[in-house]
Amino acid sequence: MKIAGKTMRTIWLAADGRSVEIIDQTKLPHQLEFATLRTVEDAARAILTMQVRGAPLIGATAAYGLALSLHDDASDDAIARNAAMLARQRPTAVNLRWALEEMRAVLADVPREDRVAAAYAKAAAICDGDVETCRRIGVNGLRIIEEIAARKKPGERVNVLTHCNAGWIACVDWGTATAPIYMAHDAGIPVHVWVDETRPRNQGAALTAFELGAHGVPHTIVVDNAGGHLMQHGAVDLVIVGTDRVTANGDVANKIGTYLKALAAKDNGVPFYVALPHTTIDWTLDDGMVIEIEERSADEVLKMAGRLADGSVVTVEIAAPGSAASNPAFDVTPARLVTGFITERGVAAASTEGLLSLYPERRR
Amino acid sequence: MKIAGKTMRTIWLAADGRSVEIIDQTKLPHQLEFATLRTVEDAARAILTMQVRGAPLIGATAAYGLALSLHDDASDDAIARNAAMLARQRPTAVNLRWALEEMRAVLADVPREDRVAAAYAKAAAICDGDVETCRRIGVNGLRIIEEIAARKKPGERVNVLTHCNAGWIACVDWGTATAPIYMAHDAGIPVHVWVDETRPRNQGAALTAFELGAHGVPHTIVVDNAGGHLMQHGAVDLVIVGTDRVTANGDVANKIGTYLKALAAKDNGVPFYVALPHTTIDWTLDDGMVIEIEERSADEVLKMAGRLADGSVVTVEIAAPGSAASNPAFDVTPARLVTGFITERGVAAASTEGLLSLYPERRR
Repeated sequence: MKIAGKTMRTIWLAADGRSVEIIDQTKLPHQLEFATLRTVEDAARAILTMQVRGAPLIGATAAYGLALSLHDDASDDAIARNAAMLARQRPTAVNLRWALEEMRAVLADVPREDRVAAAYAKAAAICDGDVETCRRIGVNGLRIIEEIAARKKPGERVNVLTHCNAGWIACVDWGTATAPIYMAHDAGIPVHVWVDETRPRNQGAALTAFELGAHGVPHTIVVDNAGGHLMQHGAVDLVIVGTDRVTANGDVANKIGTYLKALAAKDNGVPFYVALPHTTIDWTLDDGMVIEIEERSADEVLKMAGRLADGSVVTVEIAAPGSAASNPAFDVTPARLVTGFITERGVAAASTEGLLSLYPERRR
Repeated sequence: MKIAGKTMRTIWLAADGRSVEIIDQTKLPHQLEFATLRTVEDAARAILTMQVRGAPLIGATAAYGLALSLHDDASDDAIARNAAMLARQRPTAVNLRWALEEMRAVLADVPREDRVAAAYAKAAAICDGDVETCRRIGVNGLRIIEEIAARKKPGERVNVLTHCNAGWIACVDWGTATAPIYMAHDAGIPVHVWVDETRPRNQGAALTAFELGAHGVPHTIVVDNAGGHLMQHGAVDLVIVGTDRVTANGDVANKIGTYLKALAAKDNGVPFYVALPHTTIDWTLDDGMVIEIEERSADEVLKMAGRLADGSVVTVEIAAPGSAASNPAFDVTPARLVTGFITERGVAAASTEGLLSLYPERRR
């Protein structure tokens, strides 16, 4: 998508043909800065510290991370060790493990001396594949927005609420939840996005608002508390969110607070869609409630980074001194609250049958 | 309640028997400072600048403000002028006008030379009346907590979730939603409070966490997004919140986000209680959805105040530069989601019949 009119991706091979460049997302939205990954450790750190975030981008970064590791040691042992090290950085991210397995499958069939080239080629293919997947999610989701727009008066805006950032900066391009939005906007549909702030890390207010603004999509930030009220008053036409993991029965693990929005959507008859690539589906689980939820640092709740008037970025303590905080990073939205899944293959009901209708090869 | 072991109220007569002392709540939670009100102008400023906040405390401060004014001029004209001046500081605060009318009604019947003493006595009575109302809410709510504790293993904690600040520092003592919690804690029940941060003004993380910590009640701050997840995993035994207005049919206007917690409580079979004095019931309305919701400044969403490492307090911008925000201050929780009301008269169902069972004098 575009930043200030210039088309970009979130990760790309540097001019030296070896290093990998990324947008340093820890600096957003206050500064737009780029970072260069020169080693597998750089890639691991980028994943751990969330310089890159979002399942597809984490996968792409891990793939390039493994490619970077091969310059030092292309042995089977080193590949196994570095893949395991990369996978450990975000234990909940199924896409991270998928990307690493794709890389290892390719490398296993390649003689050691050809592995560097094969790894870079595969990492690039993973990136291109993600762009194409997201583009297809956009095409499939666009139809839903077009149908809503068709029921409105000409020029009347279509209000989409989204939570967290499942945008192009969480992917390589387009995004998942945002792909239909960008396509609708680019097609001239007057789409407007309610952007959930998404405490504690504020990915909505910081990242989704940043990328929508950079591309020129009308949007309004609201605190996470506001979505239910907006839906009660008819101000939301549909919800589209991303997901970190969907279980085979259609339960959705996503950023903490997604479940609350799904409850409000159900209570108010607002369609609630989850946009995802097939790689996010965990076919081994039939119940989302068994997913282990990562507990992150209390500091994310107790402190906040922001810009002072002079433009410098500082971190302030916002809570009562001495109070503890708990910080579960994700919650699970039961399939019964989800209107449908938007995937690269189409739109389907949030159920085992719905998912199998899109992925019949998974029938057992 | 207690601050660092010392029993306090939010407003009290100074040792000189004339001035009035308050906790300067604009400094919380970053600093605990007190302010002395020596004149009616001091009291007016305390109300205007939100050194005092919460309907009961604003009323109590106005009452003492009028008492302070009588030292200079106890004439009918001066009383009328100063009462009007105090009322202007927060034009929408019903409780502020109520307290001033109570004061004027008493003073009208008293000769000029006795008015200072009568005013101080009435202001003290208004404070004591609020304390007694909250104490009764506490006694009635305590029974609910005791019943939950009785179903647990000895020593197993009772987890209460609350939203915003309906605590003692919004009242004179005890608070509304917090009164049952303080009573349970003081009675030795191992109560633990999940404190919703309560964006955008963070009254939970700042004020509720402060007052629970100061009294020694175990508590944990969570972002507003986390409550649904906690309830899904059995970590919440009951929810208690306050309210700004309850309609005659039992709908509850309260801080934005309350509705989302009520939905989650319903979905998980968690009891959801609203604590209130009878003065909060609006018997003229039979539908909460018609209540006009105040839209507050976008800056409350886009900026945040906090402490730097050196202890100084600064305000930072936290969102993507240039993005707009919307800031509805309250939402309405339908009566169907509310387990019951805890008032100074007892506990009742959230319905017209439930409310009338406690206030039969309101039957028409």
